[in-house]
Amino acid sequence: MPDKVTISVDAMGGDRAPDVVLDGVADALAADADLSVILCGPADVVEPFAARYERCTAHPAAEVIGMAEHPANAVRKKKDSSIVVGCRLVREGAAQGFFSAGSTGACLAAGTLVMGRVKGVARPALATVIPSPVRPVVMSDIGANADCKPEYLVQFGQMASIYAERIVGIDAPRAALLNIGEEDEKGSQFAQEAHRLLREGLPNFAGNAEGGDVLAATYDVIVTDGFTGNVCLKAIEGTSKVLFGAVKDVMTSTPAAKLGALAVKGGLRRLKEQVSPDTYGGAPILGVKGALLVGHGSSSPLAVRNGVLTAARIVRQDVAGTIARTVSGGAGRARKEVGRHGA
Amino acid sequence: MPDKVTISVDAMGGDRAPDVVLDGVADALAADADLSVILCGPADVVEPFAARYERCTAHPAAEVIGMAEHPANAVRKKKDSSIVVGCRLVREGAAQGFFSAGSTGACLAAGTLVMGRVKGVARPALATVIPSPVRPVVMSDIGANADCKPEYLVQFGQMASIYAERIVGIDAPRAALLNIGEEDEKGSQFAQEAHRLLREGLPNFAGNAEGGDVLAATYDVIVTDGFTGNVCLKAIEGTSKVLFGAVKDVMTSTPAAKLGALAVKGGLRRLKEQVSPDTYGGAPILGVKGALLVGHGSSSPLAVRNGVLTAARIVRQDVAGTIARTVSGGAGRARKEVGRHGA
Repeated sequence: MPDKVTISVDAMGGDRAPDVVLDGVADALAADADLSVILCGPADVVEPFAARYERCTAHPAAEVIGMAEHPANAVRKKKDSSIVVGCRLVREGAAQGFFSAGSTGACLAAGTLVMGRVKGVARPALATVIPSPVRPVVMSDIGANADCKPEYLVQFGQMASIYAERIVGIDAPRAALLNIGEEDEKGSQFAQEAHRLLREGLPNFAGNAEGGDVLAATYDVIVTDGFTGNVCLKAIEGTSKVLFGAVKDVMTSTPAAKLGALAVKGGLRRLKEQVSPDTYGGAPILGVKGALLVGHGSSSPLAVRNGVLTAARIVRQDVAGTIARTVSGGAGRARKEVGRHGA
Repeated sequence: MPDKVTISVDAMGGDRAPDVVLDGVADALAADADLSVILCGPADVVEPFAARYERCTAHPAAEVIGMAEHPANAVRKKKDSSIVVGCRLVREGAAQGFFSAGSTGACLAAGTLVMGRVKGVARPALATVIPSPVRPVVMSDIGANADCKPEYLVQFGQMASIYAERIVGIDAPRAALLNIGEEDEKGSQFAQEAHRLLREGLPNFAGNAEGGDVLAATYDVIVTDGFTGNVCLKAIEGTSKVLFGAVKDVMTSTPAAKLGALAVKGGLRRLKEQVSPDTYGGAPILGVKGALLVGHGSSSPLAVRNGVLTAARIVRQDVAGTIARTVSGGAGRARKEVGRHGA
């Protein structure tokens, strides 16, 4: 990865901002010598930090968009918020990508309104890498578009497939529609129509997946509307949390269990780390002009580090450009783009 | 539970029918002295078995509906199938409930077409008890209705709440709408409208739940359309399966881990049993005239036993009658019915 990249970063995003963000940015700068960061936030936060790091500059942004604010309204009103400023830096060319662990809705609104949609993209989509213990799976949409038309899902599939190949490194990803039955004719009217359109328009479409196929990594890319995708993702995360908690209870239930647990503790910790969303550092918003990655509100410094590095990788792998060529060129072009470049 | 109850049972339902079904029926008869069973299936299967058990009679049914057949077509065509015959026995009053581990779609079609809908119920719904390690949760619809109108969800909530109280024994169950945000105004247009109608029409409605709230048992009853419910349920089951498999891999990865695992094996087995769907024996179809319970295709004899006993309990707790009074009486009546009888 030799290319020099500049990422603007929201210093005020996340539950423990700015400290966790600053730690993560410092780690990202240390990990990537060709990375520069423009840190957006209140001057008293960003300026002292930037003064200490060679490849970091400060860009003051006096306002902060809270997690509970109405996203589009807040983006329109708070022109000097760290999220709007960070996206504007991308639009103006000062940075090529933006990372925030703040409000997903506000990032989506700012990505669409400030960075702008890639020409031909009907709706930008929120994707995520699901850290399955089997192998990583890309799912999209996971909540940007609660109400979808079936045709949106073809682009969601195209964009997520590009992300799977270029960023996650999945060679020739197989994409499936999240549905309630494996057979082609199964599902709601919406799912049946989406299936038909995906069959026509997504060259790497492999059929229907069920809820259980997601974490089992039966397919590499899961295509769905933002409502179903969000429910499914949160069901997976919630089940994982409840079960790890219950396994921990078993391990500490008796003195003998505690003793025995010592021998498996390390392995279980590694498994827990493996299925943690921190590894991939965030959820990309695909279909906007530039790299845009949103971290969990509860992001750790490691998650922020990985998020900033992933945003740089999205720039270097030209994900937005590939999406632009794919959606304008139609399905034949998509076939050509996916599978042409290794990740 | 003193009342004598007769349950018709599909001898040919499930992957390992009839053996597993016959074993489960024998166990159910042994467990409940006031239970009688009418076993439906080929004469050479059901007659020898019925001859050996005092409270079991045989009802020949020459045809079998396969798992891959189109449900409604198969039910219309195969009048002498074990599923249609079993449902007809309920309609005719010879039995009060029916259990099958066969095709859910065929049971749903036979329940609707042969038993008939409860007056006032727009759409019968498939519910299930999710065996959370925290406490059981009832979810409905889990796949009977892939396409719903928002108003259906009010009845799904009423019916599932009655089931939660009377069958699962949850006192004053709190019901929530499965949605993609906790705040009242969140979600798709469908979810927003369903939320508004539930707020008006379901006295025990407590707000929106997210995918992670289901297994965490934040609420007792989860109301959703059949598409979202099915995806969510299968995501939970699939995640549980993948994670238990990964934990098992950790436990057998090294000689030391194997040794340590001995001390926690029993506890993990109990946890796995606790979250197994076998405990509740199946998914009820609510809103039909009679008790109707569908078991997993992979049901064990224990699951069949519990399914038959649960069907008898649905009869004794007058679930169908309570549903009839609730939907005809509207919301005020629902408030009166839920909370009046302990389970």
